[in-house]
Amino acid sequence: MAVVRVTTRLDLEYDGTAFAGWARQPGLRTVESELMGALATLLGGAVALTVAGRTDRGVHARGQVVSYEGPPAEVAALNAVLPHDLVVRSSRTAPEGFDARNDAVARGYCYRVLARREPSAFTRTTELWWPRVLDRELLHACAALLPGTHDFTAFTPAGGGYVHLRRTVLDARWEEDGDRAAFWIEAESFLRHMNRTLVGTMLDVAGGRRSLDSFAALLKGAARAQAGPTADPRGLCLESVRYPA
Amino acid sequence: MAVVRVTTRLDLEYDGTAFAGWARQPGLRTVESELMGALATLLGGAVALTVAGRTDRGVHARGQVVSYEGPPAEVAALNAVLPHDLVVRSSRTAPEGFDARNDAVARGYCYRVLARREPSAFTRTTELWWPRVLDRELLHACAALLPGTHDFTAFTPAGGGYVHLRRTVLDARWEEDGDRAAFWIEAESFLRHMNRTLVGTMLDVAGGRRSLDSFAALLKGAARAQAGPTADPRGLCLESVRYPA
Repeated sequence: MAVVRVTTRLDLEYDGTAFAGWARQPGLRTVESELMGALATLLGGAVALTVAGRTDRGVHARGQVVSYEGPPAEVAALNAVLPHDLVVRSSRTAPEGFDARNDAVARGYCYRVLARREPSAFTRTTELWWPRVLDRELLHACAALLPGTHDFTAFTPAGGGYVHLRRTVLDARWEEDGDRAAFWIEAESFLRHMNRTLVGTMLDVAGGRRSLDSFAALLKGAARAQAGPTADPRGLCLESVRYPA
Repeated sequence: MAVVRVTTRLDLEYDGTAFAGWARQPGLRTVESELMGALATLLGGAVALTVAGRTDRGVHARGQVVSYEGPPAEVAALNAVLPHDLVVRSSRTAPEGFDARNDAVARGYCYRVLARREPSAFTRTTELWWPRVLDRELLHACAALLPGTHDFTAFTPAGGGYVHLRRTVLDARWEEDGDRAAFWIEAESFLRHMNRTLVGTMLDVAGGRRSLDSFAALLKGAARAQAGPTADPRGLCLESVRYPA
């Protein structure tokens, strides 16, 4: 008789503020460790998790996807044992062998900026407060340069151990809503800190501290020191993961 | 020589979660006491505050207005001494004698509902999570009954000491955005708990536990016990205050 393996797909959202990122680390409160604990409680044993997009400390997710070998637990039961800042949106059987990381064809992130003189009483941990000069047209011009395949060496810490540093951006744009600006980007995959460093460098351009041409030149490959600062993690959120239909 | 009185107008936003409401109370953390403390620090003496809309424990504000007799403090200086959940949006000289409460001609509130099976990792303190049945058409039908002058006795605790219990609603509507529903209402003034009890009663109608006709009948005056529950304060936010042009 054939052994039937069951693969489960989980869709998650979490407020990353109080987590030390996704990945399990001894003594730290991470998304992976909280989720593994809840699943162990409900399934009666530990499961190994595969995640679509590892997020750093303080980074949020609205559309994170996780897979594991084992049966699904009920959404309501999971949310009853999970902490308030980690919510399971769905839990269901996936095609056998589904792999949340390797099967993903694209990830979508959003970086949110509040551009006004006063901070917000509500979104201090989910938006970057930016009381400085911000030229919206220059933001749009930067984003327009991103779709396509580029060498993003300048936008990730040196020594990351990547085999290659080219990545393909499928879509990138800034959306405005009053004093809010949000950078939406979808790519097949990302380098570590790539989104946050892109945003930090675009804010340099929009603040007049760097030219648009210099931003364009960075996309051809350059040392990390040539790009701008890594923007604060609080503004970043993994919004969606795409899989083949 | 005439004495020159200076009146200041402050526009505020606050996350009401950690406040025991607006009004100063001994030993409690309230919006009024935090703001008075900051102003005393910057102005070198205490000022008496007049507020457009007193908010209860847990209720938020994005467009609260306050007046006092005295000079304005700088916005940046105020925000530097205020806690993170209380932000001054503007601070400026108003016409002499401006009174934030008595001069207001309308107040606008919004009550936000998240209508889905799973809670939110992000908005637990600013939206009401409603995983139950919610008929959107019945919500709209309820809101359509509200504009005009009605007797809201059923929607406020008995013994509130009001001279009269009729109030004039200028506008009321539910706006939908995916699994979110938001009740926007503007009135000249409100009774205590009126918005939250309107929402609690409309949720009864939208959940099939009360008829639309019975909701309509409540607007002609009825005992408090005839209306529905007082909805949780976390969903409510004072959005705007209107003054004569």
